[in-house]
Amino acid sequence: MNVLHMINRKKHGQALTEEEISSVVMGYTLGEIPDYQMSALLMAIYFQGMNEEETLALTRAMIHSGEEVTLEGISGYKVDKHSTGGVGDSTTLVLGPILAAMGLKLAKMSGRGLGHTGGTLDKLESIPGLSVDLTVEEIIEGTNAIGMVVVGQTADITPADKKMYALRDTTETVDSIPLIASSIMSKKLAIHNDALVLDVKVGDGAFMKDVAQGEELARTLVAIGSSFGRDTYALISSMEQPLGSRIGNSLEIIEAIEALKGNTDTALFQVVKTLATLLVKGKTGEDEGTIERRIHEVVASGAALKKFQEFVAFQGGSPQVVEDYSLLPQAAHSVEVPALKGGHVAKIPAEAVGNIARDLGAGRKTLDDELNLGAGIHILKRVGDAVAEGEALAVLYGDDPQALNTAVGEYQQLVEISGAAVEAAPMIHGVIHEQSR
Amino acid sequence: MNVLHMINRKKHGQALTEEEISSVVMGYTLGEIPDYQMSALLMAIYFQGMNEEETLALTRAMIHSGEEVTLEGISGYKVDKHSTGGVGDSTTLVLGPILAAMGLKLAKMSGRGLGHTGGTLDKLESIPGLSVDLTVEEIIEGTNAIGMVVVGQTADITPADKKMYALRDTTETVDSIPLIASSIMSKKLAIHNDALVLDVKVGDGAFMKDVAQGEELARTLVAIGSSFGRDTYALISSMEQPLGSRIGNSLEIIEAIEALKGNTDTALFQVVKTLATLLVKGKTGEDEGTIERRIHEVVASGAALKKFQEFVAFQGGSPQVVEDYSLLPQAAHSVEVPALKGGHVAKIPAEAVGNIARDLGAGRKTLDDELNLGAGIHILKRVGDAVAEGEALAVLYGDDPQALNTAVGEYQQLVEISGAAVEAAPMIHGVIHEQSR
Repeated sequence: MNVLHMINRKKHGQALTEEEISSVVMGYTLGEIPDYQMSALLMAIYFQGMNEEETLALTRAMIHSGEEVTLEGISGYKVDKHSTGGVGDSTTLVLGPILAAMGLKLAKMSGRGLGHTGGTLDKLESIPGLSVDLTVEEIIEGTNAIGMVVVGQTADITPADKKMYALRDTTETVDSIPLIASSIMSKKLAIHNDALVLDVKVGDGAFMKDVAQGEELARTLVAIGSSFGRDTYALISSMEQPLGSRIGNSLEIIEAIEALKGNTDTALFQVVKTLATLLVKGKTGEDEGTIERRIHEVVASGAALKKFQEFVAFQGGSPQVVEDYSLLPQAAHSVEVPALKGGHVAKIPAEAVGNIARDLGAGRKTLDDELNLGAGIHILKRVGDAVAEGEALAVLYGDDPQALNTAVGEYQQLVEISGAAVEAAPMIHGVIHEQSR
Repeated sequence: MNVLHMINRKKHGQALTEEEISSVVMGYTLGEIPDYQMSALLMAIYFQGMNEEETLALTRAMIHSGEEVTLEGISGYKVDKHSTGGVGDSTTLVLGPILAAMGLKLAKMSGRGLGHTGGTLDKLESIPGLSVDLTVEEIIEGTNAIGMVVVGQTADITPADKKMYALRDTTETVDSIPLIASSIMSKKLAIHNDALVLDVKVGDGAFMKDVAQGEELARTLVAIGSSFGRDTYALISSMEQPLGSRIGNSLEIIEAIEALKGNTDTALFQVVKTLATLLVKGKTGEDEGTIERRIHEVVASGAALKKFQEFVAFQGGSPQVVEDYSLLPQAAHSVEVPALKGGHVAKIPAEAVGNIARDLGAGRKTLDDELNLGAGIHILKRVGDAVAEGEALAVLYGDDPQALNTAVGEYQQLVEISGAAVEAAPMIHGVIHEQSR
C-alpha cells in the first residue's frame, strides 16, 4: 500500500479500492500511517466524496478493526435506534417501552459524551439506584424478559472510528456525508440487530442544516444498512426548536414518563410514533394505521409505562419515580422567564437554547465536567403558542442564582415573538426505507 | 488564532487574512501547530487556492521565518535566476559568465538535493579544486571583482518553507500554484537582489505538464516579485526533451563551456539568451536586438569564457578545465546507443531519460547517495535529427558495465523514431514581465 498514491488518486476524484481502504484504516489504527497523511486523505475525501462501494468498504474496515456484539441468546426481532443528535431528545426512553410492549427487543448500547445534556446513560442515572453497567448475561436476561435494557458499551467496538473521529474533530473533516455515514453505521452494524432506525435531524440545532443534506445522509445510511442485510429505516425530522419541552437529565426523564402516561399530542411523540411504526412494520408487515392504533393502545392501557417501570427496576432503579418526580435530583433554584412582549412565539433556536441548558449544568463542555442532573429548561410556550407580555415562556432550573439570572436574559433575547400568528414547521420531513439486499 | 476556524474558512473557499497566515506559518514553524492540522489546511488550499493577497502574505510570512541576505557591499545591478527544474539544464553556468561580461552582478546561492543530476553546486564541484563554501567577504569580493560567484547557502533562510515543503512532499500537497509560487519566491526574495528571472519549465520532464499551467505559475511568480519591488521576469520554456545535450555533472560543465566557446545554435543557448536579454533590458533599457547582438559579441570575443575562467579560479578551481576536459572526473566506461531503426528522432522523453542518467550515478535518489560525477548521457541525436539504423543516438557514461548495458536497452525503448520528418516543438512558449509596483 502506498498512502501517497491513494491521496493523489482521491485528490483527483478517483475511487479507492476495497483493499486500499481496508489497509489504510488498518494502518492508521495500528499507528503505521501518521496523522498528517490521514488528515490530508480525509480532507481530499471531504472535497471529492466517496462512492457507495468506497463508503461500504470504509464501514466494513471500521467494523473489522474491533469486536462485534452478536446478541446471541436474545430471542425475537432485535432492533436498534440512532439519532444524529438534537436538543431535548428523550426519544429512546419513550420508544423503548412502547416497542417492548409490542413484543420487539431493544438491547440499547449508549454512550456519554459532550452536548447540551448528558447522553441517555446520564439521563437514566438520574433515576436513584439505576445502573447502566450490566453483564452480558444480565443484558440477555433483561432483554428476553422485559424487552429492553439500556447499557454502556460492553465491547471495544470500532477502535478505528474512535481514532479517525478524534482526528476529524481537530482537522475540520467531520462534515462529509460518507465519513459521517460510515462512522455511524460501523458502530451500529458492529452490534448484530435485525433492524435499525435512524433519526436524522435537520435544522438549527442539528448537524445537518437543511433537508436536502439530511436526505442525502439518510439515503446513505439506509443504503449501507441494507447492504449489510439489516432492515434499515431513516426518518428526517425537524430540529428547528427543541424536540421535547424539557431539556436536562432529570427533566427529560419526566418528559419521557409524561409521554408514556398519555401526553401524546407533542412533537416528541410524533417522532416516537413514526420510528416505532417503521420498526414494527418491518416485523409484522401490518399497515401503518393498524400499527399507530396499537401504539396508542399500549400507551392508553399503561402497558408501555409498565415496561418502563420493569426496565428501571431490572437495572436497579426505583420504579416509584413514575409516581413521584421528587425522587429525581432537583436543582436548588428555579426561575420563570417572562415574555418581554405579547404575541406568538416564532422561533426557539434549538442549538442556542441547548447551550443555555448546558451552561446551567445539564451538559458537559469537556469530558471532565460534572453534570448537575437537576439543571435545565422546561419550555412552556413552543413555536406557534400565543403569549401575553410578562407571561412565563419557560422555567429554568439550576444551582447558581447568578447563572440563572444571566440565562433568563439570554433566553429572552433568543426567543422571537411575532405580532402575527405563527405556524410551527412540519416535524417529519420524510422517511426513507430500502429493502435489504 | 484558531486553526480550526482557518481550515473551515479555507475549506469553504474564503480568503485568509494576513494576520491568520502569518500566525499559522509562525505557529507551524515553532511546532505549536501540529502536522495533521497543517496538512489538512494545505489540502484545503490545494482545492480552494489562494488569492494574490493570500499568496503574498504566505510569501512574506515564510521570508520572515528566517534570516535575509542583504548583499550589502556588492555594487551594481544585482540579479538572480531560478529554474523550476529540468533535465540537462546547465543554464546558470552559461548565463552567469555572459551577464558578468555585460556588467551585471550574479551572487548565486544554490542548493543540492535530489534529481536527475546533482544541483549546480555538485556540477561545479566536479571542477578540481573548486569550492562553493565562500565567506560573506569572499562572496562580496568575487562578485564585485568578477561579476559572479556560485555558492551554497550562507544563511538560514525560510525555515518555514523547509518545514512546510517536507510536509507537502509527504501529503500530496506539492502541486498547488500558490504554494509552489510562495515557496520559490520566499527563498528568492530573502536574498535582496534588484532583479530576478524565473525559468518555468513545462512538458514531460517538468513539474508543470502543460503551457497554460506554466503560464499561470509564471504570472503568479512575477506578480509576487513585482509586489516586493523587484524587477521580475519569467520565461515559459519547453522541457519535452532534455534542454542540453549532456546530462551529468562533469558532462554539463563541458556543455556549458562548449556554449561559451561559441556553440550557440542550441536549445540551451536559446534559453540562456532569452533569460539574459530580459535581465539586461531591465538594467539598460536597450532594445532586444541590440542586447542579443551584444550577447553574441561577449561569446564571440571570448569575454564570457574568460569570466567563466576567472570565476572558477576565484573559487579555487582549475581554469585549465576549459582547455582540457580530461581534468574533469571521468566515468570508467562509455557505450554508444545504436538506433534500432532508421528515421527521424520524434521523442526523447526528458524525465525518463533523466532517470537513466540518475541510475548511472549522475543523480541522487536519497540525500545519502554518492554521486558519480563522470556518469551521464551525451545525446547525439536530438528531436528532429535524422538517424540511420545502427547509428549512435547517444553515448552513456558510467562505472558499472552491467548498469550501462541495461541503460542502453532502456534508452532504445524510450526514444521514438518516426519514418516521417519531425519538427522539434518551440523552445520558448512565452515571456512574462510586469513592472514592479
